[in-house]
Amino acid sequence: MNINDTIIALATPSGIGAIAVIRLSGKDSIRSVNTFFKSKFGNKDLLKQHTHTLHLGHIIDNNRFIDEVLVSVFKDPNSYTGENVVEISCHGSVFIQQEIIQLFIKNGIRLANPGEFTLRAFLNGKLDLSQAEAVADLIASDSKASHQIAMQQMRGGFSNEIEQLRQELLNFASLIELELDFAEEDVEFANRDDFQKLVYKITSVLKRLIESFAFGNVLKNGIPVAIIGEPNVGKSTLLNALLNEEKAIVSEIAGTTRDAIEDELVIEGVAYRFIDTAGIRDTEDVVESIGIEKTYEKIEKAQLVLFLVDGEKERKESRSLGRGKKIEIENIQKKYPNKKILTIINKVDLLSKKEIERLKSNIQQSILISSKEKTGINKLKDELTKLTNIGALSNNQTIVSNSRHFEALNNALLEINNVQNGIDTNLSSDLIAIDIREALSYLGEITGKVTTEDLLGNIFANFCIGK
Amino acid sequence: MNINDTIIALATPSGIGAIAVIRLSGKDSIRSVNTFFKSKFGNKDLLKQHTHTLHLGHIIDNNRFIDEVLVSVFKDPNSYTGENVVEISCHGSVFIQQEIIQLFIKNGIRLANPGEFTLRAFLNGKLDLSQAEAVADLIASDSKASHQIAMQQMRGGFSNEIEQLRQELLNFASLIELELDFAEEDVEFANRDDFQKLVYKITSVLKRLIESFAFGNVLKNGIPVAIIGEPNVGKSTLLNALLNEEKAIVSEIAGTTRDAIEDELVIEGVAYRFIDTAGIRDTEDVVESIGIEKTYEKIEKAQLVLFLVDGEKERKESRSLGRGKKIEIENIQKKYPNKKILTIINKVDLLSKKEIERLKSNIQQSILISSKEKTGINKLKDELTKLTNIGALSNNQTIVSNSRHFEALNNALLEINNVQNGIDTNLSSDLIAIDIREALSYLGEITGKVTTEDLLGNIFANFCIGK
Repeated sequence: MNINDTIIALATPSGIGAIAVIRLSGKDSIRSVNTFFKSKFGNKDLLKQHTHTLHLGHIIDNNRFIDEVLVSVFKDPNSYTGENVVEISCHGSVFIQQEIIQLFIKNGIRLANPGEFTLRAFLNGKLDLSQAEAVADLIASDSKASHQIAMQQMRGGFSNEIEQLRQELLNFASLIELELDFAEEDVEFANRDDFQKLVYKITSVLKRLIESFAFGNVLKNGIPVAIIGEPNVGKSTLLNALLNEEKAIVSEIAGTTRDAIEDELVIEGVAYRFIDTAGIRDTEDVVESIGIEKTYEKIEKAQLVLFLVDGEKERKESRSLGRGKKIEIENIQKKYPNKKILTIINKVDLLSKKEIERLKSNIQQSILISSKEKTGINKLKDELTKLTNIGALSNNQTIVSNSRHFEALNNALLEINNVQNGIDTNLSSDLIAIDIREALSYLGEITGKVTTEDLLGNIFANFCIGK
Repeated sequence: MNINDTIIALATPSGIGAIAVIRLSGKDSIRSVNTFFKSKFGNKDLLKQHTHTLHLGHIIDNNRFIDEVLVSVFKDPNSYTGENVVEISCHGSVFIQQEIIQLFIKNGIRLANPGEFTLRAFLNGKLDLSQAEAVADLIASDSKASHQIAMQQMRGGFSNEIEQLRQELLNFASLIELELDFAEEDVEFANRDDFQKLVYKITSVLKRLIESFAFGNVLKNGIPVAIIGEPNVGKSTLLNALLNEEKAIVSEIAGTTRDAIEDELVIEGVAYRFIDTAGIRDTEDVVESIGIEKTYEKIEKAQLVLFLVDGEKERKESRSLGRGKKIEIENIQKKYPNKKILTIINKVDLLSKKEIERLKSNIQQSILISSKEKTGINKLKDELTKLTNIGALSNNQTIVSNSRHFEALNNALLEINNVQNGIDTNLSSDLIAIDIREALSYLGEITGKVTTEDLLGNIFANFCIGK
């Protein structure tokens, strides 16, 4: 990893736009841009400009005008990377973007690797590793929930919590290790009561963070939802009713296009990912014949199950009006006690008031809808929001959403449990110290206090170029 | 057209990137951003900041952190539009882009119309109409030639030339009209010799500019090229050999993706547009049977004709080794005297040296290639470059590429010819003055001195939003 050279990359999305931004970072960035920049207002030496200033002019290569540009100058250490940074805002022609990047590459600037700007920011201490990872999450965020989790992580809430615990634990580790140096004198620098309290505290925080992952992970990636029910119950119509409304919301905002993902739906800022909708939509709910095994497969992948009941069919074919379905639902819940099941009775437009009342009393806590008439859809959305309980989000509670952090937290907890066992069994301090060091190392991995080139390589390889 | 309100739009290409830039322009832009911006370095009032400065902070809506952003402040009149302008550089998540734009729209900022930033720049006198049009051309430019034409136009070369002529003509118009006020006294304020000289000069400049359009228009849109020849002569292999090399060049530059257009090829900065390649490529040159009529159709659409001769077939079937083809080529040239025809003899890898020599002497000025072996391709490229003669480009000569300008120039020339006729036939000054006014009006249309709301609407409707 060479971070002594100067790098360049397109920072804005590729393609044609009104403007594009090309970013350079490194010792030579200002000097290099200065070579090809001519101010519109007389001679201007970019090297002599203040940090955080903007300059209008042309990029000129051997008397050839490449573009009229706006140049932003940021001086070491007051920049994103902590190095000298220049951002060139040019006209958004792909040809011009290429010409400018090529001009600098020909003159000794290197094309940046994916995530290299953020990597440099990390290496220069501008942000810690978990914050750096949050940058990528922020760019990928596509719902209020995933955005908020990433934003909180980037602002350092999680890092601070981990770093504080690590510092406290580190202090104790030092004291205990100091005792070892004086082993023959049998001194005790580390107060064992305070130490026990700290281990309790760390255990409880780690547990809370680990538990938050189940929630954080689905919020980040979308809550997996299975829609199940007999053929012709109206699964595809329901899905369309939900998706169409969303598409209408999305297209309201001109000027930004959002690729509406066929199977994803954002309700109140939370993304829901519908499982196996391809099957539902292809068959158009008519010829679909879904076996019990396939149903179980879908439920297993889901966190939330929408169980659709055909109201009309219940009236026609079932004397009990829903009681049979109720037993089915109870059996599924017994088989999957951790899954949330929402029962939806469809086609209520074809039922009489009395029939609806009977269905409601036979299958309690069900939602009545008509996918066709589009009634009950809002009520369904409200119920979804209630079930996912995103209250935790608004409480500014730390939520772990990164599986690397999840793994490190689990490992740290394992080591802390070993420490607790050591205390409980009066293990000698030198052995306890080893477990503490292990725990410290896992905690340090999260914020990047402990790191390897491989680890960094893995993390930043998933970034886009230009960030 | 209301330009008193404040507008907002995404300025960078839509989609996900490292960063995105959202631009606001109008009286309220700085004040409005200030409402939602919190500096990372204590309280900072954006309204009190200098123009052309950058500020790091957060966009916050009711305690909800939307993003960490970099804000650029430009103060009226020192901005692109000439108004107060703020550019918000945010993380390139589509969700975040939308959230920020929506936040401002909810607070009274209007979404910009296509090209509205540049329209405002024009209305505020930051650039003239031909320069404003060049901005759109610059963004659309995809070759060195189209880029250079747009760049020159944006820098004002064309505008200055037109505006100078218009001013000189305007002076004479005023003098001649002044004479009319003193008609009974028979004075002559406008020196008739100087006036005749000016009319000569304008005529010659207009003619030069009008002539440059044929060249400018093809450079801007790509030179239309027809590849013709018998079935199996190797059209598709030749096209692939040319295109593949180009694709290799394009993909050299990582970090920028350029949509390689199937039928377009850039050689030495000039774009060539191959006509009807779909036909060539679909048939893979095997079953293709192109009638004489279809060949003529293709030639009519082209400016440059690549006439492909099958060297192997000539050896096998023609005793004259190419003489028959030579007559065919001469006939085409006779029918289309203005088309440039380049004769290419393919499959020379299958011929002996002696046969090649005979072919060369029978069809002079032909290029020998083997599409299969990829020999002669560079020579062909050199010949293409010679034929298109882009020397004019490097001489910094004004080249008209915009058909609106072409039309205005033609109309102006028509009126100037009328003026010349008037002079020649001793027409009375009041009638000549009318023709001068007409010419002035057409010249004024080019730079926007004379304009209508319709005209502006048409021009800027073709811009992208955010520019």
